[in-house]
Amino acid sequence: MIQTSTNLKHIKNFISEDQLLVYKNKIKETFTTIYEKRGAGNDFLGWTTLPSEMTKEFIKDIKDQAELLRKKSQVFVVVGIGGSYLGARAVIEAISHQFGSLLNRADDTQIVYAGHNMSEEYMVELLELLDQKDYSMAVISKSGTTTEPAVAFRILKNHLENKYGKEEARTRIVAITDKAKGALKTLANEEGYKTYIVPDNVGGRYSVLTPVGLLPIAVAGIDIEELVNGALAMETYCKENQNCDNVVAQYAMARQALYHDGKTNEILVSYEPRLHYIAEWWKQLYGESEGKEGKGIFPASDTFTTDLHSMGQYIQEGLRNLFETIISVEKPTKEIRIPLADNDLDQLNYIAGKRLSEVNRTAETATILAHVDGGVPNIIIQIPEISASTIGELIYFFEMGCALSGYMLEVNPFDQPGVEAYKKNMFALLGKKGFEERAEDLRKRIE
Amino acid sequence: MIQTSTNLKHIKNFISEDQLLVYKNKIKETFTTIYEKRGAGNDFLGWTTLPSEMTKEFIKDIKDQAELLRKKSQVFVVVGIGGSYLGARAVIEAISHQFGSLLNRADDTQIVYAGHNMSEEYMVELLELLDQKDYSMAVISKSGTTTEPAVAFRILKNHLENKYGKEEARTRIVAITDKAKGALKTLANEEGYKTYIVPDNVGGRYSVLTPVGLLPIAVAGIDIEELVNGALAMETYCKENQNCDNVVAQYAMARQALYHDGKTNEILVSYEPRLHYIAEWWKQLYGESEGKEGKGIFPASDTFTTDLHSMGQYIQEGLRNLFETIISVEKPTKEIRIPLADNDLDQLNYIAGKRLSEVNRTAETATILAHVDGGVPNIIIQIPEISASTIGELIYFFEMGCALSGYMLEVNPFDQPGVEAYKKNMFALLGKKGFEERAEDLRKRIE
Repeated sequence: MIQTSTNLKHIKNFISEDQLLVYKNKIKETFTTIYEKRGAGNDFLGWTTLPSEMTKEFIKDIKDQAELLRKKSQVFVVVGIGGSYLGARAVIEAISHQFGSLLNRADDTQIVYAGHNMSEEYMVELLELLDQKDYSMAVISKSGTTTEPAVAFRILKNHLENKYGKEEARTRIVAITDKAKGALKTLANEEGYKTYIVPDNVGGRYSVLTPVGLLPIAVAGIDIEELVNGALAMETYCKENQNCDNVVAQYAMARQALYHDGKTNEILVSYEPRLHYIAEWWKQLYGESEGKEGKGIFPASDTFTTDLHSMGQYIQEGLRNLFETIISVEKPTKEIRIPLADNDLDQLNYIAGKRLSEVNRTAETATILAHVDGGVPNIIIQIPEISASTIGELIYFFEMGCALSGYMLEVNPFDQPGVEAYKKNMFALLGKKGFEERAEDLRKRIE
Repeated sequence: MIQTSTNLKHIKNFISEDQLLVYKNKIKETFTTIYEKRGAGNDFLGWTTLPSEMTKEFIKDIKDQAELLRKKSQVFVVVGIGGSYLGARAVIEAISHQFGSLLNRADDTQIVYAGHNMSEEYMVELLELLDQKDYSMAVISKSGTTTEPAVAFRILKNHLENKYGKEEARTRIVAITDKAKGALKTLANEEGYKTYIVPDNVGGRYSVLTPVGLLPIAVAGIDIEELVNGALAMETYCKENQNCDNVVAQYAMARQALYHDGKTNEILVSYEPRLHYIAEWWKQLYGESEGKEGKGIFPASDTFTTDLHSMGQYIQEGLRNLFETIISVEKPTKEIRIPLADNDLDQLNYIAGKRLSEVNRTAETATILAHVDGGVPNIIIQIPEISASTIGELIYFFEMGCALSGYMLEVNPFDQPGVEAYKKNMFALLGKKGFEERAEDLRKRIE
């Protein structure tokens, strides 16, 4: 049983049944393309069965390792970029206390991130923090040579060894990397780091339910079993419902129809600020999977009602090439009510006694209707609450939705050929061997 | 003398001199429209002279008040939404230590935000924090009846009074509101709160250099005098250079030419994660000013190289309706170098000894060239470093750039008529008096 539902009521003013039918007719074969591995990029379909293939022993091993690290770490550094960063952060921020860093609880391990940028100020300030805190880290890289995490790991490994000595440092580093080859695997073997495997058949942006995501998430104190079980429910559901009534298929069909109708910007919206990084993760998933060959929906995100007071005007009355997808959360897990005021100067007594979430949910309904009236179609994806289990469902939902979308758009949803362009230029300009010719060309252009 | 420069070299492959000329020819008259207050929304031009009209006494008063609050507050809550939230947060996050919340320094006051969303979980968790910390707050609202901050302030005022008693609570609340009328002004008078004025002739999104932004920024320990002086340099420069060589005019002209050439999505990019909220502030400024009458550039933002591993693929090869504006920072203020490794497993010894920022800057140049080759024009805005003074310049730069852009697009850059739509629906659905008819209509649509 899944807890997620999709509602397409608010695209009906914009998309006819006939327009949807084009994609309805494709759904069955698109599911088949995925499950029978007939499409482009079919070496990277490992994510489809990750939840069902996960053993109890595997989860226990990660949990035990996480517990070891938590016990000796006030801070845990996750060194990774792209898919080796966003999935973990998305789940951790969705579930953790939103003021955890300021609460400073003795038994809490705070997660921080490195190797996802090359800001010198960021790194210096991170080291200032790590000077003062007990910490350990995970370094996550399939190859071990991706510039950002490799540079960060050089610096942090030195820092950790200086702080604790080489022996102790070894017990504070976990490597998540290729099963057999690559720079990080070799180093991990030499140093004797605890190691987890990034499977060969799972691409970076689909890797959150591998140790890439699961170890950091477990170190943050989140129940990874519940997370995986949520994803498993959605895996089972999809397998058993390869048709156009499937909640995931509904999402994929709707966005294809909207895209081909000129709605080329999709804004993923939620009314819970803790879901901000779910949207960042989603942006990589969809942007990197669809944005190729001069095609693809541009993914953006907003947190409402916050951004109704910034992007709200544009959404209501700007260029009409937008649609919104709302992650709608039925109920919060914590309760507070709006107090009554004697004088009612702020004129809010008419909502006194209501839970804050009632007002938040009303704002959501009000906004959907206003935006639809303004010419912006809305897709609603609803979950009952934010928990490890519903987030697990959402992860699998968006992954399957992305594969379906990519194939219907007739692109390979599992490659990312365009990501190399800046890297090659960078290697050339930094003087890496083998890039001399490109370097000369680029230097001429810069002058 | 200003420290900001604009470089349009990387739009030349896309925009001809003739295309730019259309806007070059308009620049002089557009400056005149602004300075002589001849355009739409000319009641809201107070921001143009805020820096030069600010007195030493005014700044001293804010600084003194901030010092009082800092002394007794581990945490300072800024209650506001939209322009009463984003400007302060943009400057505070741009200048403050990026791990300040975890460093837990005894003499530091950490800034947190409320009243910018209606998430029940967020509010409950905020109260859990405030139970444990000494705190004070600013409530920022022109009217005092905007739902989000008004609801948050009801709850927080109760909490503060329960924690400290009514007398002490009064000294821990500052109201920033209308000079004479409105719910918050009335309450502030009754309670005897220290009060600052939101000027009548400055709209929310242009208000960061009023007490709306300056008080919270000062409480965060940032030198507001330097910030204002930076803005003053840009004010003076603009006044004296009302022509198409003006660095601000260059930005405004370029984006108009790009927009009319079909580049309808602008991504504001920086390579420094601390500038993330500058981009959020910018999104409100430009989205709310331009997004009306079915027109306007859709504002998005990315932090590189982080998002080169998420949005990079789309930018390189997706739909070609994008352009990028880079906030390019010449030098970091803190130094670290990449260490040499004995074995060079990660193959990074070719850049050992370099400062991290050299690699970051090289990534920037490499990416600009790659994206231009991929069909994405790039505008570069360069500042020498991130400081209160350069951020002050940038603020005025973007404000003036926005006014110029809005008038060239032939919209009123100072109104936001579309923001009311969701509010009216919300009032109706919540049962506010005067909205009965709308409520009936909406209920029918929901069923």
